[in-house]
Amino acid sequence: MHDPGDLAAAIDRLAEFNDDPDAGGITREVFTPTYAAGLEWVAERMRGAGMRTRIDAFGNLWGRWEAGDPGAPRVVTGSHVDTTLNAGRYDGVIGVLGAIEAVRALREAGHAPRRAIEVIAFAGEEPRFGTGCIGSRALVGALDRDDLDRLRDRDGVTLAQALEQAGLDPDRVPECVLDPATVHAFVELHIEQGIVLETGGEAIGVVTAIAAPHDVRLAFHGAATHSGATPMALRRDALAGAAEAMVELERLARESPSGTTVGTVGVLRLQPGAINVVPGDVELDVDVRDSNRDAREAVVEGLVAAARAIAERRDLTVDVTPIVQDTPVICSPLIVDAAAEACAELGLSHRRMISGAYHDAMILAARVPVGMVFVPSRGGVSHHPDEYTPPEQVAQGVEVLAGVLRRLSS
Amino acid sequence: MHDPGDLAAAIDRLAEFNDDPDAGGITREVFTPTYAAGLEWVAERMRGAGMRTRIDAFGNLWGRWEAGDPGAPRVVTGSHVDTTLNAGRYDGVIGVLGAIEAVRALREAGHAPRRAIEVIAFAGEEPRFGTGCIGSRALVGALDRDDLDRLRDRDGVTLAQALEQAGLDPDRVPECVLDPATVHAFVELHIEQGIVLETGGEAIGVVTAIAAPHDVRLAFHGAATHSGATPMALRRDALAGAAEAMVELERLARESPSGTTVGTVGVLRLQPGAINVVPGDVELDVDVRDSNRDAREAVVEGLVAAARAIAERRDLTVDVTPIVQDTPVICSPLIVDAAAEACAELGLSHRRMISGAYHDAMILAARVPVGMVFVPSRGGVSHHPDEYTPPEQVAQGVEVLAGVLRRLSS
Repeated sequence: MHDPGDLAAAIDRLAEFNDDPDAGGITREVFTPTYAAGLEWVAERMRGAGMRTRIDAFGNLWGRWEAGDPGAPRVVTGSHVDTTLNAGRYDGVIGVLGAIEAVRALREAGHAPRRAIEVIAFAGEEPRFGTGCIGSRALVGALDRDDLDRLRDRDGVTLAQALEQAGLDPDRVPECVLDPATVHAFVELHIEQGIVLETGGEAIGVVTAIAAPHDVRLAFHGAATHSGATPMALRRDALAGAAEAMVELERLARESPSGTTVGTVGVLRLQPGAINVVPGDVELDVDVRDSNRDAREAVVEGLVAAARAIAERRDLTVDVTPIVQDTPVICSPLIVDAAAEACAELGLSHRRMISGAYHDAMILAARVPVGMVFVPSRGGVSHHPDEYTPPEQVAQGVEVLAGVLRRLSS
Repeated sequence: MHDPGDLAAAIDRLAEFNDDPDAGGITREVFTPTYAAGLEWVAERMRGAGMRTRIDAFGNLWGRWEAGDPGAPRVVTGSHVDTTLNAGRYDGVIGVLGAIEAVRALREAGHAPRRAIEVIAFAGEEPRFGTGCIGSRALVGALDRDDLDRLRDRDGVTLAQALEQAGLDPDRVPECVLDPATVHAFVELHIEQGIVLETGGEAIGVVTAIAAPHDVRLAFHGAATHSGATPMALRRDALAGAAEAMVELERLARESPSGTTVGTVGVLRLQPGAINVVPGDVELDVDVRDSNRDAREAVVEGLVAAARAIAERRDLTVDVTPIVQDTPVICSPLIVDAAAEACAELGLSHRRMISGAYHDAMILAARVPVGMVFVPSRGGVSHHPDEYTPPEQVAQGVEVLAGVLRRLSS
């Protein structure tokens, strides 16, 4: 259908738009001059595939393949081309460059879409300003003017200032909000960022639901006493309490009846942090996700109850602070079925699976039917220079995406 | 016997020699100009109590009350007047200033020592150069010239350079080594730095043994994968493994048959440290102490075996790196009995206990009989501006020390 080498070369070419090549990975944060240059290169590629391009009021790039029926709601596909610091070259990028390839292939195969097909590069999926998915949040009207002035990057630049520096008017952002009546479906091709497909040996993941996080901070407070001079029975060891809570979190997640709950402590801060002092204060940042909201909430509630019981028994105190609580998304059966049919047609093995990571599709789901197609990630590595998916596997994802777009746009 | 207010005033006066008064605590690291000025003030106080003073080849300050029998081995008492950063004013200090008060009181009471009584302020009990107790280590010949050039402070200054800056010759350090035949006993008055006495309501701790640390670093290595995209069954979570090891350490220490083993994880480092990434690498710095060496070693061995089993089961690896392995000390019955008798004579409640913290006495024990006398520490707080022992309790410790010195020097 198309030469995997072309897309691989395009991925490599886009990787040259990089603010920190010496670090070994890609650094291309949204609204930087390097991002703008990369985005213009992507727009040129869209035009080369026969699409008309525009930048909306938030800086999202759109490429449009006109419809046979101009009044029919359009089919949208895409992802993002911004990166975290020193990242890989596949996350987001294959969902944009791959969508352009899919459109090119469909056109070359003689497909005449009844519905318009639009390819989008969302402005800012990665959290330069602390919050991820700002491009898609703008599209669903979830960013107001206060947010634009409040959200700042690590240098203190507000999102509003960054928009201005990119030539956009923060006051006009509402103009980009999507009218749901104009969108038939949104489908996003992405690397899995996990090892489910690699472990199972499947070529394609057909995403049936997108898990959403409920994150909390647990802060245990005890007494920072001398490690030698404080007998075990007289300790108020905040880390020992935290260790017990971490064991309990893992047990709760493993035994969750949904079978898809995950629980992680990715951040642990302790004070005072000396080998000869019992830790007096420990903070755990806890991330619990599931596509099943009830199962997820049961794990969070179980963890909080366990933390309080542990604190009580150990003469500690524990503070629980909310971080984020998003809503899981059920993917549209229309898209799930189309993706499964495309895999069957192509003779590609696939697995129906949930997306543990969240994506712009999760945000768009507030307004339009969404779905996702995954390709494997080698070793599950992502947000790292070693992120990798072989060209043949990327190409298989593009073929499935083309099959989905053909079905949805007919 | 003496006015507690005098000693309290002296403790406050010495606290004025402080490199960081704005921080709220005391910062007086060994071999700094502030330390030298404070030490000279201490020397003057020794001379005011009738002692002859000298600084030895490592910078230890000695004050001597001459013997009735010049040939008899001397009795040595003292501690240290250097501090950690932003520390309290009692740790070490009461063992030096209190010893001077004890000498003054004995002299005023008409005591005529048969053996000389010497008061020492050890140069560098706190770990400015990474290793603690360097003053006492020099006295037992445990620091060679290589050590002086190898040990560095946080600014990269070597111990040899610091000695030179303090007007000492690193090549002459061996001249300070103690001849054991000249020392009858060493006794150190110190704050407990724990809450055993406070909890039990006793005035005095008579130390029967000094626990020594066996410290190891456990480094767990797994895979830093996406917290959402990695199902529980596919994780190689280094922190989850470390949490299990911490729970096991606590169990082993609590169940240790000696009843005096303590196990602490005071330092935990994790990578990469993001809320949405499963920790791939976790280091634990583990401190295990006991006065019973066999019991201590059994806990360390049990922990290492558990860590290996946990790593095996979780598809992690674990590296075990030694940090320190010191030898516990049994205190001299001569000193233990003298202290218990002194308490009885004074009508003071006391508890025979082990010192969980180590002190210069632990180092000197390699050459001479040692013992220690503890007074309570409010809340067990130490190495912190809030470190506190009421003047009356300090005074009781000085009275007991005087009683011990009277018995040992007679």
